[in-house]
Amino acid sequence: MTVVIALGGNALLRAGQEGTAEEQLANLKIACEQLVDIIRKHKVVLTHGNGPQVGKIVLQNEIAQESTPAMPFDVCGAMSQGQIGYMLQQQLKNEMIKKGVPGEVVTLITRVVVDKNDPSFQSPTKPIGSFYSEEEAREIMRKKKDQVWIEDAGRGWRRVVASPDPKKIVEKEVIKKLLQEDSIVLVASGGGGVPVIKEGDIYKGVEAVLDKDLSAELLAEVAEADLLLILTDVTHAFIHYGKPQQEKLQRVSRQKLEEYWQQGHFAKGSMEPKVRAALRFLQKGGKRAAIASLDQALEALEGKTGTQVVND
Amino acid sequence: MTVVIALGGNALLRAGQEGTAEEQLANLKIACEQLVDIIRKHKVVLTHGNGPQVGKIVLQNEIAQESTPAMPFDVCGAMSQGQIGYMLQQQLKNEMIKKGVPGEVVTLITRVVVDKNDPSFQSPTKPIGSFYSEEEAREIMRKKKDQVWIEDAGRGWRRVVASPDPKKIVEKEVIKKLLQEDSIVLVASGGGGVPVIKEGDIYKGVEAVLDKDLSAELLAEVAEADLLLILTDVTHAFIHYGKPQQEKLQRVSRQKLEEYWQQGHFAKGSMEPKVRAALRFLQKGGKRAAIASLDQALEALEGKTGTQVVND
Repeated sequence: MTVVIALGGNALLRAGQEGTAEEQLANLKIACEQLVDIIRKHKVVLTHGNGPQVGKIVLQNEIAQESTPAMPFDVCGAMSQGQIGYMLQQQLKNEMIKKGVPGEVVTLITRVVVDKNDPSFQSPTKPIGSFYSEEEAREIMRKKKDQVWIEDAGRGWRRVVASPDPKKIVEKEVIKKLLQEDSIVLVASGGGGVPVIKEGDIYKGVEAVLDKDLSAELLAEVAEADLLLILTDVTHAFIHYGKPQQEKLQRVSRQKLEEYWQQGHFAKGSMEPKVRAALRFLQKGGKRAAIASLDQALEALEGKTGTQVVND
Repeated sequence: MTVVIALGGNALLRAGQEGTAEEQLANLKIACEQLVDIIRKHKVVLTHGNGPQVGKIVLQNEIAQESTPAMPFDVCGAMSQGQIGYMLQQQLKNEMIKKGVPGEVVTLITRVVVDKNDPSFQSPTKPIGSFYSEEEAREIMRKKKDQVWIEDAGRGWRRVVASPDPKKIVEKEVIKKLLQEDSIVLVASGGGGVPVIKEGDIYKGVEAVLDKDLSAELLAEVAEADLLLILTDVTHAFIHYGKPQQEKLQRVSRQKLEEYWQQGHFAKGSMEPKVRAALRFLQKGGKRAAIASLDQALEALEGKTGTQVVND
């Protein structure tokens, strides 16, 4: 079986942690202990979020900008792919060695094309970086005409960027070739991929946030995966989440899940993109998608737990 | 012909530049215009330095460390691989598209094993990060027992790390597989690779500086390259450099170059590691190495200019 696994933020960083390399490596080690049991039996492609990591890189760039030029957000995203990919390939390969699972883990710096006319570019909503005063924000907007800043719920002014729909993985042919090799565990499209647009024939980086679950769906298409497995910190997707009539979704058809989705059962920026990625994968011809807890990864892969989304 | 090309710092950043992303992308575009003519005809594996870039990442980590934890130097190196790899694959692919050269460019996050008993760990010499007062430096050394700081020529105190000899590319099997694909231009081992040691069977990151030319030599061995082409900002290696009797080396035998090297003709940390990488490649069975100027890359590949090092 070929499975694309999207690792949620909790694989890297837990609530209350500062985000040291030691913490992230320790969290990844636990996640990789789970993953090795899957890699032993199946062809695995990994992807991961980068929210806290790229946030920290942006913060470092901001704070140090008097001393050295701040990198644009697309470059920061590529840096986070290097950072997380390195830590993940190190910890995963080490667990594979310990458990006698052969194979090589490799991280590809991955770009994802978005439509330059994506409507989100007209109304950016994803905050990045620190809070500033109105005066500072207006001064930055005067200097950098392409930046949009908004007042954020009384906490100050903050830069916002678009969150366009991921359309195509630039490196997809290379990914396909690497997947022909049984011995390779691929880490790709980290943080949803580095967003680029096409201007004529030419690729150009854009400052935007990509949803890692929707990009994982693209990866699952490229890999012709049998399963898109989205791992997070809850055991299932729920309807009526947090209410008395809350109900966990176990085996659910695409049609039924789409109904729930249209009824607005899933939280934006959290469960909603996971559900959307699962639905899209099945719409594009995929057979199964699952949303499950990181520590039940193997059981979810085997269909024994988690929200299992199927065609009928 | 298979050629491993080591790009010098001038491909990315020029003297007097601040180091903005725009500057680096513009410099890379010029470098890539050169490289495309080679890629059209030959199998190319690229590697690159990361000195200024990783220096800036360390600086950002230092300056912002009250707000977010500083990453260790190996993680910063992986971040620089992501940053430079992304910019390089973007600009190179764009030039390939413009000139109708088919193929995909892909960056691999690459680790390089060093010997944990490498003598350089006993006497680290490579400065990283900013200057501090003696008091600050002693305070940091009290907290971080594994760090070594030295007084640097009256300019203040600075952290130094080891520069161990690169021994083996961890991802070499994946690199070999990718090289079987004619359509792939690989970017690997950026900044000399992320340095790791083996403790038992387990890989562990170490804070050390790797020489990108010596790691490029490892890459040339893995690629079974016909040529190791080291591109820099001078046209040749010179003997008696900067003196009245200065003489450029054109075609030079390994034996003769080794003599010059032993006589101390080449500047440490600059031309010396390039000469050493060229010598080592021929010692390990390589047929030709060349040291040349970035803007004469194709001519140097064709043996028409640069210092051409051959077996006899």
